Amino acid sequence: MTASPSTLSPVLEQADRTLDAALARLFAFLRIPSISTQPEHADDCRRAAMWLRDELDGLGFDVTMHETPGHPILVAHDRTPPAGPHVLFYGHYDVQPVDPLALWASGPFEPGLVAGPDGARRIVARGASDDKGQVMTFIEAIRAIRATTGTLPVRVSLLIEGEEECGGPNLVPFMEAHRDELRAEVGLICDTAMLPGVPAITTTLRGMLGEEIHLRCATRDLHSGIYGNAARNPAELLCTVLSSIRDGETGRVVLPGFYAGVEDPSPALRARWREIAPDDATFLGEVGLSIPAGEKGYTAIEQTWCRPSFEINGISSGYTGEGFKTVLPGEAVAKVSFRLVAGQDPVRIRQAFCAHVRAMLPDDCTVTFTPCGGSMASALPDDAFGLRPTLQALSDEWNTPAVTIGCGGSIPVAGDMQRILDMPALLVGFALDDDRAHSPNEKYELTSFHKGMRSWIRILHAMAPADA
Amino acid sequence: MTASPSTLSPVLEQADRTLDAALARLFAFLRIPSISTQPEHADDCRRAAMWLRDELDGLGFDVTMHETPGHPILVAHDRTPPAGPHVLFYGHYDVQPVDPLALWASGPFEPGLVAGPDGARRIVARGASDDKGQVMTFIEAIRAIRATTGTLPVRVSLLIEGEEECGGPNLVPFMEAHRDELRAEVGLICDTAMLPGVPAITTTLRGMLGEEIHLRCATRDLHSGIYGNAARNPAELLCTVLSSIRDGETGRVVLPGFYAGVEDPSPALRARWREIAPDDATFLGEVGLSIPAGEKGYTAIEQTWCRPSFEINGISSGYTGEGFKTVLPGEAVAKVSFRLVAGQDPVRIRQAFCAHVRAMLPDDCTVTFTPCGGSMASALPDDAFGLRPTLQALSDEWNTPAVTIGCGGSIPVAGDMQRILDMPALLVGFALDDDRAHSPNEKYELTSFHKGMRSWIRILHAMAPADA
Repeated sequence: MTASPSTLSPVLEQADRTLDAALARLFAFLRIPSISTQPEHADDCRRAAMWLRDELDGLGFDVTMHETPGHPILVAHDRTPPAGPHVLFYGHYDVQPVDPLALWASGPFEPGLVAGPDGARRIVARGASDDKGQVMTFIEAIRAIRATTGTLPVRVSLLIEGEEECGGPNLVPFMEAHRDELRAEVGLICDTAMLPGVPAITTTLRGMLGEEIHLRCATRDLHSGIYGNAARNPAELLCTVLSSIRDGETGRVVLPGFYAGVEDPSPALRARWREIAPDDATFLGEVGLSIPAGEKGYTAIEQTWCRPSFEINGISSGYTGEGFKTVLPGEAVAKVSFRLVAGQDPVRIRQAFCAHVRAMLPDDCTVTFTPCGGSMASALPDDAFGLRPTLQALSDEWNTPAVTIGCGGSIPVAGDMQRILDMPALLVGFALDDDRAHSPNEKYELTSFHKGMRSWIRILHAMAPADA
Repeated sequence: MTASPSTLSPVLEQADRTLDAALARLFAFLRIPSISTQPEHADDCRRAAMWLRDELDGLGFDVTMHETPGHPILVAHDRTPPAGPHVLFYGHYDVQPVDPLALWASGPFEPGLVAGPDGARRIVARGASDDKGQVMTFIEAIRAIRATTGTLPVRVSLLIEGEEECGGPNLVPFMEAHRDELRAEVGLICDTAMLPGVPAITTTLRGMLGEEIHLRCATRDLHSGIYGNAARNPAELLCTVLSSIRDGETGRVVLPGFYAGVEDPSPALRARWREIAPDDATFLGEVGLSIPAGEKGYTAIEQTWCRPSFEINGISSGYTGEGFKTVLPGEAVAKVSFRLVAGQDPVRIRQAFCAHVRAMLPDDCTVTFTPCGGSMASALPDDAFGLRPTLQALSDEWNTPAVTIGCGGSIPVAGDMQRILDMPALLVGFALDDDRAHSPNEKYELTSFHKGMRSWIRILHAMAPADA
């Protein structure tokens, strides 16, 4: 199923030749501060969607910008599709918030090319890696093919949303309502990482369960002198509650039934991961750490690829400004999340978590839970449509055997494609773990962008019927 | 030593007659947002000091506004002092921050008179009770005496600072440098509470030890999908550390040596407190709670008046804005404080606290401690100068026997007067525990203001030599 060199080479050369123009288009996309979780950026999210709509329209697609209660969803279909398999590409145009802003070396929405420590150039901006840069590898691949051969090798549709980073509830009902329009042979999701120099398809993804907890003790903030000791301190109560979720010795989550249904990967797979993935010292050393946290008995990579986690994503109570205030706060808030693996049921785990928290509260304190999204973990079968040709295409482009890996992140749409559209999803991404997604100074290697584009060209050709 | 009614009555009548004008002056003082801990309010602190300087100058005092590295310190001496004892009044012109602003029913610096649930009028503004309203009870007492008899019954000096609410380091060296100028027979500190309807002199005060803890794990914020489980979460680590300071069963602080030197009050004193102070249900019920926190075996009042405490005053880590962000934070910060009682050494307790925290940290995480003030607890001897006549004067004004009580708050200047100026300090205040000092909608009963003023008139007369 490998495409003939005669068809492929001119397209790859076209991609090489027009890289600067592709980069300029990506920069324009990156300048739009489409932070989906912050209501004041709603217009920017719409602008990002409109920018994509215009790009895809210019590339010969019928594009519909679907309104939702949140940010718009784009669906694009090739106006002149070939016969043969149908692929549905998925990406998102929204980005994470940028705080703490002070830690950015340049404006998060002022993209630039800077040299990394190894001399290689990288694109620096919020969204460079997650996910605008990755989305544009696919769109620029289409542009190069269109410019060279006119017709795409397979029938391509795109689904691009704007609520990935805020766990928005609108994509699932949209997919359910547009099931027939969206269904294809395979989904192509470009929102994951590869290993340094080694292309990868992510075949397992963690699910996620997010929850906001609001503890209320006294009806108001108190003077810590007048009430200190006697009135319950919600910050201390919250610390007690949150530090009880994990066993201090084993690092395991103590909620009843939390690990029910969770299976370890095979010894062979674990051995293979140890060959290709960074060891603990390398993986943690990159962010200044050396001692793995979490569960004992697993490597850091195993912990993120195949074990469920508990995280405090945010906590706040009392006075946290400059100086000191002897306040005894009346309330305390935390945002927490569990990353889930195959076999775990988010609904049951949410119930266990809420029950655990409630059981620890004195009767005169109250807790409010606000669900912040939940999704099942997902795993791709070995015989999924397109998996083999895609591995081959990636191996050809990167000149090294592509591998299948796990991903600690949660990309609910992969499971949703399986469940709602009854098709597998190939997670092919060119980000690197050190891209600082969600952090200040997010970057995307220029190599990721360029060879990512070339990889998609090869993948689309490889998916075409052998006689194409 | 009770002043003759012939001298006293006209002064009290003058105070009654001019109450509205006194209130207008207090309102002008309250309109100045002199928040000492926030650098952007430095000019407002200076304005508050200048406002007081002008008032005192107009009342016949030589006033010096002393510059410090922080906010100015005012010292005022009577230009025409009588013979006889010398008293040094202490108050502060700075106020606490006002957040959360949304919980204020009216602007914190737009003072107003509103009717409370019992129909009694109250002054509502930041600083109404702590401490501008209290300071003005004394200054208005002087004004009424001056207007009526010309000469004050005792030699009066005033020391009014602007860094009480931020634990500023400048008052102690100032007192040391001006020891001879400031030394008097007794200090009069108006920054404490009375019981509802029952006047009180506070004879024990808790000390305080404040500390900011900054935990650092990864060098930057991480994506909780990529690193979740494997990289240490500083918010979770901070929760574990802070929830370990107190024993969950007994409520006692577990730091080694924490209770060394701490003695329980006598059974007689505890019995007396139970008579005059609110019971647990009343004390906690006022703020919506019913179950005492803290140490088992003590009433809520005992816990705040005579037992040391641990409080989390603020905690912050990760994303706490609107929506959800799947960040694994790189750092976490808390502001904590211990209220100390007689016998406890803040230096040794700080050492024990820091050692306890350090011992809990993995080797690849770091902690930074920032001291935020420390002071010894203090206790007044039974035979302190002025104690008896002041109790009598208060009993006369409020028509009920005045009592001696403890205070959970920390007013370091009381100990400093003892230590540096070698004189006792009488803590006489007219605030109530429900005044919401440090909280939104801070208030001061109009009765507190009016009868506070009248109380000072009686106290100053009572301190004069019997033949005056």
